[in-house]
Amino acid sequence: MSPPAHIPLGPGGEFDRIRAIIAGLGPDAGDLGDDCALIPLGGTILAVSIDASLEDVHFRTDWLSFPEIGWRAAAAALSDLAADGATPLGALVSLGVPDNGKRTSDNDDAAVEIMTGVGAAAQSVGAKVLGGDLVRAEKYLVDVCVLGTAERPVRRVGAHVGDGLWVTGMLGGAQLALRELMAGRRPDPEVMRRFAQPVPRIAAGRWLAANGATAMIDLSDGLVGDAAQLAAASGVGIEIALERVPSWLGVEPLLAVASGEEYELLVALPTVFGEPQARRFRQAHDLPLTRIGTCAVGRGVRYTDRGAPVAVPRGYDHFPPPPPG
Amino acid sequence: MSPPAHIPLGPGGEFDRIRAIIAGLGPDAGDLGDDCALIPLGGTILAVSIDASLEDVHFRTDWLSFPEIGWRAAAAALSDLAADGATPLGALVSLGVPDNGKRTSDNDDAAVEIMTGVGAAAQSVGAKVLGGDLVRAEKYLVDVCVLGTAERPVRRVGAHVGDGLWVTGMLGGAQLALRELMAGRRPDPEVMRRFAQPVPRIAAGRWLAANGATAMIDLSDGLVGDAAQLAAASGVGIEIALERVPSWLGVEPLLAVASGEEYELLVALPTVFGEPQARRFRQAHDLPLTRIGTCAVGRGVRYTDRGAPVAVPRGYDHFPPPPPG
Repeated sequence: MSPPAHIPLGPGGEFDRIRAIIAGLGPDAGDLGDDCALIPLGGTILAVSIDASLEDVHFRTDWLSFPEIGWRAAAAALSDLAADGATPLGALVSLGVPDNGKRTSDNDDAAVEIMTGVGAAAQSVGAKVLGGDLVRAEKYLVDVCVLGTAERPVRRVGAHVGDGLWVTGMLGGAQLALRELMAGRRPDPEVMRRFAQPVPRIAAGRWLAANGATAMIDLSDGLVGDAAQLAAASGVGIEIALERVPSWLGVEPLLAVASGEEYELLVALPTVFGEPQARRFRQAHDLPLTRIGTCAVGRGVRYTDRGAPVAVPRGYDHFPPPPPG
Repeated sequence: MSPPAHIPLGPGGEFDRIRAIIAGLGPDAGDLGDDCALIPLGGTILAVSIDASLEDVHFRTDWLSFPEIGWRAAAAALSDLAADGATPLGALVSLGVPDNGKRTSDNDDAAVEIMTGVGAAAQSVGAKVLGGDLVRAEKYLVDVCVLGTAERPVRRVGAHVGDGLWVTGMLGGAQLALRELMAGRRPDPEVMRRFAQPVPRIAAGRWLAANGATAMIDLSDGLVGDAAQLAAASGVGIEIALERVPSWLGVEPLLAVASGEEYELLVALPTVFGEPQARRFRQAHDLPLTRIGTCAVGRGVRYTDRGAPVAVPRGYDHFPPPPPG
């Protein structure tokens, strides 16, 4: 039994650790490294992903309501299904709740409120809550495993030299909200909704999968980090024109490309996909679709601003390498 | 759209909370309340379960090695597949690791070691690690979502009045190990293995499903708690003869029935299933199968010791009701 060929991962301390885990697992690992695990089953392909949200790492209870915490955790996981062009079936949730958690009555139970948010996010894309585990924890924990099916899943692998690189929506809203919250200010309601109640791009992902997408990834770690993953997985170089990146009003492009937890889709499409096709997409989904770059010969991601090379900061890394010395 | 008919849950603060969550979800909930979620898909039935293991709630790093922590977390989830008579496909894992976690080199990384244990447990039942999420956390966290298929899943619902009630293996080993560890002693190696490296009863569960099991549950919460769940789900009463409960050497029956995290199977079998069939099971699996009681008219679980009624303590409850007053 030869070990499976894992999808190459991009740079970063977190991915160094994942590489070490995959090496440690050896033949006990499946085909790892995509947004979803893909399992052929009974004539269809099952797509599964898991996404953990931890208090004080991914959210703070003074920033978000409990239903928002649940919605956001579920949307993050569902976004992985979107990135594979999958149709959601449902979600399983491990929920950790402190012993002293908010619990004045059945109607005012944080566990109930979080799960209501999970249920609403699932319902918004036609899925259900299928099961879960409720445990006592020191801090709130919402770990969501989502299941879906994909007739023609789109992976991170598959972008070709010459493909156009497109992005859905507008970037930087999550970062803008975070900046306001960290400064102790309440963000503008629309910006706050963008942060608290992100929309998993399920319909958009399916449409792009059906219209020729060669590779796709969601921007959970931000464009900088996720473009590097797509480039590494597909074995191509990527060139991104910063001035084309669709940014939320008031967000500089350099911040927009670093903004994590955006839950938009980055997608490679063949050259036959142009403005007329993009217009059809926008009409079908009420959502921008913008060409920001090209897949090229080489490795890694190069950024330009009106033709001039630009250095961009790295995206978020759960496990940054220790400082030298 | 009428809400699905959820499986009735047994007593306890944890289950009161789950009942409130299900009520809050309304039509956004699937058919909840079994060991696994069951999803008909492409001619087969997908069985899925999720099980969270948290440092200082489910394990302590001074009691278990990191590979043992991983194995135990995976075995707990796989045990849910066993309880439905399912065949495992694979596991997805959310892994939380402290920033200051053990990490002197790639070969000495707690994340790698935990996942090696997960992989070994999966491999022991023919499954693979299919995906995961690696996050920074204040304490170690291993949340395992397992997937399998079941041609004829056995649920908690389905036991009939008159069915015999049987249990696999010997109970109380996990409790015995825990008692030693809490007293600061190192348990006997065989007892410790029972605690640190429980065997998910996959082959046993499949055999029982194929040989007429009407209802089945794993003893993750202990016999007392899980027998109450099976009785409530099936709408029957259960009578258990304490003197028949197969107990680990040196464990009193009252402790054995309360011992959680046993990962043995409790199964209802029709009256045609008797000692000759049980002998075939034992030969096939090198594992005891013992008749400990009967499904009867009524509700709840009654215990006797050589015919005399006995009161037994409750099993573990993650959210015990507050003391009165």
